[in-house]
Amino acid sequence: MSQVESKVGPRPANSIQSERTAIDFDIDLLNVFLEGSYEEAAIVQELMQQIERDPILKVDSSYYELNKSEHREVTARKIAQLSTYMERDAPDYDKFQKRLGLLTIIDPQLGTRIGIHLGLFLSALKGNGTDEQFQYWAFDTGAVFLKNVYGCFAMTELAHGSNVAGLETTATFDKDANQFIINTPHIGATKWWIGGAAHSSTHAVVYARLIVNNEDHGVKTFVVPLRDADHNLNPGVAIGDIGAKMGRDGIDNGWIQFSSVVIPREYMLTKYTRIDEDGEVIEPPLAQLAYGALLTGRVTMVRESFRTSQRFMTVALRYAVGRRQFAEKNSEDNAELQLIDYPLHQLRLIPWLAFTYALACGSERLTKEHVLTIEILEAASRSEDFTKIGKAIEKLKNIFISSGMLKSACTWFTANLIDEARQSCGGHGYSSYSGFGKAYNDWVVQCTWEGDNNVLAMSVGRALSQALIKAQKGKKIEGDLSFINDYKQFVGKDVILGQYFDLKVLLICYKAVLIRLADYVVQLLPENNNNWDLFGAEKVTMSKLNAIYYLLEAFIDRINKLSDKGNIKPYLVDLAKLFALSNIDKFSGIFLQFNVISSEQLSELSFEIKRLNKHLRTQVIGLTDAFKFSDTFINSALGSYDGDIYNNYFDIVKMQNKEVKAPYSEVLEKMLHRAPLENREYFQKSKEVLNRLGKL
Amino acid sequence: MSQVESKVGPRPANSIQSERTAIDFDIDLLNVFLEGSYEEAAIVQELMQQIERDPILKVDSSYYELNKSEHREVTARKIAQLSTYMERDAPDYDKFQKRLGLLTIIDPQLGTRIGIHLGLFLSALKGNGTDEQFQYWAFDTGAVFLKNVYGCFAMTELAHGSNVAGLETTATFDKDANQFIINTPHIGATKWWIGGAAHSSTHAVVYARLIVNNEDHGVKTFVVPLRDADHNLNPGVAIGDIGAKMGRDGIDNGWIQFSSVVIPREYMLTKYTRIDEDGEVIEPPLAQLAYGALLTGRVTMVRESFRTSQRFMTVALRYAVGRRQFAEKNSEDNAELQLIDYPLHQLRLIPWLAFTYALACGSERLTKEHVLTIEILEAASRSEDFTKIGKAIEKLKNIFISSGMLKSACTWFTANLIDEARQSCGGHGYSSYSGFGKAYNDWVVQCTWEGDNNVLAMSVGRALSQALIKAQKGKKIEGDLSFINDYKQFVGKDVILGQYFDLKVLLICYKAVLIRLADYVVQLLPENNNNWDLFGAEKVTMSKLNAIYYLLEAFIDRINKLSDKGNIKPYLVDLAKLFALSNIDKFSGIFLQFNVISSEQLSELSFEIKRLNKHLRTQVIGLTDAFKFSDTFINSALGSYDGDIYNNYFDIVKMQNKEVKAPYSEVLEKMLHRAPLENREYFQKSKEVLNRLGKL
Repeated sequence: MSQVESKVGPRPANSIQSERTAIDFDIDLLNVFLEGSYEEAAIVQELMQQIERDPILKVDSSYYELNKSEHREVTARKIAQLSTYMERDAPDYDKFQKRLGLLTIIDPQLGTRIGIHLGLFLSALKGNGTDEQFQYWAFDTGAVFLKNVYGCFAMTELAHGSNVAGLETTATFDKDANQFIINTPHIGATKWWIGGAAHSSTHAVVYARLIVNNEDHGVKTFVVPLRDADHNLNPGVAIGDIGAKMGRDGIDNGWIQFSSVVIPREYMLTKYTRIDEDGEVIEPPLAQLAYGALLTGRVTMVRESFRTSQRFMTVALRYAVGRRQFAEKNSEDNAELQLIDYPLHQLRLIPWLAFTYALACGSERLTKEHVLTIEILEAASRSEDFTKIGKAIEKLKNIFISSGMLKSACTWFTANLIDEARQSCGGHGYSSYSGFGKAYNDWVVQCTWEGDNNVLAMSVGRALSQALIKAQKGKKIEGDLSFINDYKQFVGKDVILGQYFDLKVLLICYKAVLIRLADYVVQLLPENNNNWDLFGAEKVTMSKLNAIYYLLEAFIDRINKLSDKGNIKPYLVDLAKLFALSNIDKFSGIFLQFNVISSEQLSELSFEIKRLNKHLRTQVIGLTDAFKFSDTFINSALGSYDGDIYNNYFDIVKMQNKEVKAPYSEVLEKMLHRAPLENREYFQKSKEVLNRLGKL
Repeated sequence: MSQVESKVGPRPANSIQSERTAIDFDIDLLNVFLEGSYEEAAIVQELMQQIERDPILKVDSSYYELNKSEHREVTARKIAQLSTYMERDAPDYDKFQKRLGLLTIIDPQLGTRIGIHLGLFLSALKGNGTDEQFQYWAFDTGAVFLKNVYGCFAMTELAHGSNVAGLETTATFDKDANQFIINTPHIGATKWWIGGAAHSSTHAVVYARLIVNNEDHGVKTFVVPLRDADHNLNPGVAIGDIGAKMGRDGIDNGWIQFSSVVIPREYMLTKYTRIDEDGEVIEPPLAQLAYGALLTGRVTMVRESFRTSQRFMTVALRYAVGRRQFAEKNSEDNAELQLIDYPLHQLRLIPWLAFTYALACGSERLTKEHVLTIEILEAASRSEDFTKIGKAIEKLKNIFISSGMLKSACTWFTANLIDEARQSCGGHGYSSYSGFGKAYNDWVVQCTWEGDNNVLAMSVGRALSQALIKAQKGKKIEGDLSFINDYKQFVGKDVILGQYFDLKVLLICYKAVLIRLADYVVQLLPENNNNWDLFGAEKVTMSKLNAIYYLLEAFIDRINKLSDKGNIKPYLVDLAKLFALSNIDKFSGIFLQFNVISSEQLSELSFEIKRLNKHLRTQVIGLTDAFKFSDTFINSALGSYDGDIYNNYFDIVKMQNKEVKAPYSEVLEKMLHRAPLENREYFQKSKEVLNRLGKL
């Protein structure tokens, strides 16, 4: 025993250890499945080891004690440390990105803060600048190694977020001086939420309206120096901290106001739109490619959804195995049941575990598609071949849709997952040391930034409906929406799907519901003045269901490629089924409404979910151990590998108590020992006094 | 203009003001409807005014800047201030409770921290102590005025929360010394989450197993002194702070370990179970009444759900009116649309506004029922009349069910409401100054404490199913589940409800779905070994739907009693319809599965929701102004009455910026200006060095 006990206390570690010995499959193989390949699995462990041992980069429970200013400072120190890794990783930027991706699991604010420079700022330079411009700003200055130049991405304004084309900062061309005047015309155009601006950035890529001879050419991008080499603000540049946030306090988000700040003409990023010395604006047809910079962020967020889900599924399921509650009736030893043995508890968690597995496959597919698209795009933009360019644009549109549906659905689902996982740990989930609180607060901004989820999902739903209209006109649909080509099999109310506990049939169920929902909207549009806005909710639902279909398809595809080694396939098949069925159950209203399943089938399906949960429940320790997240990456009092929940938690809490009395104890003691009210009122309300005062 | 503008900026205040002038009903009358009566509405405003002006009690945006220790101290100062109001309010405790209820809107942690003493501690004394015991501990000591005694409620342990009967702290009777020995046998029995324990409490009501002659008599309650008059810990009492939490940092939650702490026999609370000097334990049949203390908390939380919903509906709807996004196609002035004009935005918010109105009525009904029940109970427990006592117990059971369903459903829904409201404000909702972040973090523990929502909801679902079984056996059901007596009209698959846009029919829809779902479970139970646990999800759904039915019924009831004055009735009818329809839509899977509505009806219903949203949208400013929450009670940069969103928000943020450079700027500057890697490696990897080192 760890402490003196006058009666034997709970031993949650025993439960976890005994379930660990009963693992029925090869954990290493399952980890390889999750990571995609042996090589990938190995490098992930290698990088995790470096992080865990690095005294500046690692985290532990003290992370949950930091206040806002401490978070800002600690994050800056980590960035300084990372810059030295960066120098050594170079030119293997992919390795550095992986490192960062893993660091983001335990410290999302760090990932964002450095990602604004390395991701948004440099991507904007690459995406919008000429090769020369990118070479200069990224390499010649040293920015790519976090030297001399630290960038931020000044897009959002106080009064404009989603509507980028409506931004109001101006970049007015002064032909005589061959320069631009950057100006914030009013409070609404103040750059807002600009990560890195408050304390870190020396330069910004500024989104501003190009004004030439009083003509507005729309929003373009400009490099604007914010601070000089002494890190002092340049004249005309007003910057401030936007203060406290719901989460991610480690990021120094700021606001920026430009008051007629002058930059050379050459600081405009001119890969697409150019302006010559005479003020003539040249806009090639490729301009629509200029907004690609945000895509990387969306793709990354899908992968982050996977990583975050892994982390919190591990915590919640270990706790559910270790924690006991209420004795089973008529049980011999009167032992309490493990939480995970309750069917409702299984239903609350195991479908989210299935989601996590589906995400492993779906996020990997999206990432690969994105890399490929960027390559094709880069090649096309260098060529003069319009067929190539056209195909590249098609590819880009496709990834706009798939990243949009996945970013929105997965960030929402992951927020739900963290919340459900926290609630499943009862009161202890509310302790900061469980990790849920900070993680949730850090997470939920993902549903808003880099494309508000509702805005993105509506555009996906609309694209899907429009693809159906095209298909109905005989056009062939390419890419991720190509399933719509089969629409004829599904439109019409007669087809009822029979047996759907088979993965192939489950895929068909999703196709059917998607096409029928799209058809429903398409049918109703004309009688509603083609007002797409009226069908916002339907479009969002379509996007969510399409994301689930995408994840399911990727999951099944990967399972089909598996050998029978290590006994992992049967569990993966069950997880895929559970993922498919639990989401039919979640969206049962739509599946019933469009006659894809019947009421009786819904009832059968709910029993099949219960059966799958009960079966998978026996392996939850193995299915989360396979993530191979060490205690540093879990960073939760409730979720350590050893399962010794209560001792671990208490050890952390005990570190709090250096003083027995509160520093403000006097306030309470004075209150408790205050004199009677009569005394404090100078006895001025005594009967005698009132009698005297009341005398006429 | 407030600031220099080189172009006219946005004027959100104009939108809000112009919609305010278009309010179509009598706001004061609507406020009276919401508060229940003229008198109530008047006292609420009077108390709000006292709070808003009190320099210690009021809050403003600086509240969002406080760190953990500051929150703890500020909360203690507020409690000290409140103690002086308490003395003057007495003996009108009802007035003080109202004061506290309103303070809780802006500072939930304060409400809880003082509520632990005034609510849980004193309620436990009253509920479990004899009249003499209550008189002594509450009045003679001064506790009721926060003097000398400050209590906490030591129920939960590290390893036991929901299962109160499983608590493991022991109170062993020592007959010879006529005293109890209170002991924490092992780490799992450490009292945990005990609000007030860490810094404030002098005494605790401790839930511990009564052990007499090695016999375990189950969990009883004992008064245990924790600290002496110098506020030092008593020997054998170990107490510590449990540290950082997701929210409510103002509460000094602590852990307590008792190591053979001795208390006199007379410190046991003996209203029900008694023990005499010889160690004989007397347990009257009324012992089941002893757990009533937690009920008040649940009832209060339903009312808090209402208040919190009012606050954040006001913020989100004012923002939705003031904020504009994307120009309407072909609009003449190219002005951007107000967010609230988008049908999806209406759908995201206006049904929650309808929920808020339903909550006004439902929470008031529950509160009144609770007061009545407590009165009947008090009277019964003093009498020897077993008919009276039996009826009182029936009443208590009824309020267990109704408070359980409402506490769980309303705290969940309110968490969803805050989250949706935040997301609807886009990125700005993520700023601490919007108020959403702290409110959400403070709120969500309500889903867990004083009866975990899932545990409560399952017990309600089970009670409902059991009531159906009873009714089917011919027994009459009393109380809030009495609608089950009509079960014959609804069981069976043939009845399809026709027209449901009428409030009466909508009520029937809910009855139908509840009875059919209960019947489904009841039918399936025998073939599943009567394993109630297997139907956890169904029971939770039943409880949620029953709560909605309760709120709807209370709402309609209040509407029916209204005169036609002030044109408020038509809007209230529409809100009630919207509340009913939007929840059918939310639970459409169940309504379709049990054939209460058809697919076609679901589609019609979704258009009716859109129509109601569009109609109510014109009055959202009035419908939230009617809450009469001044800016102090809103405390959000985005939701002030004047609607001048951007100026208000910027003014708050600008207060952040006393320094231009970060205090840790050196860390960043050193990184940016560090020497080249070669230098920092002492040039020890130069070709020349490597050549020399590599020579064989």
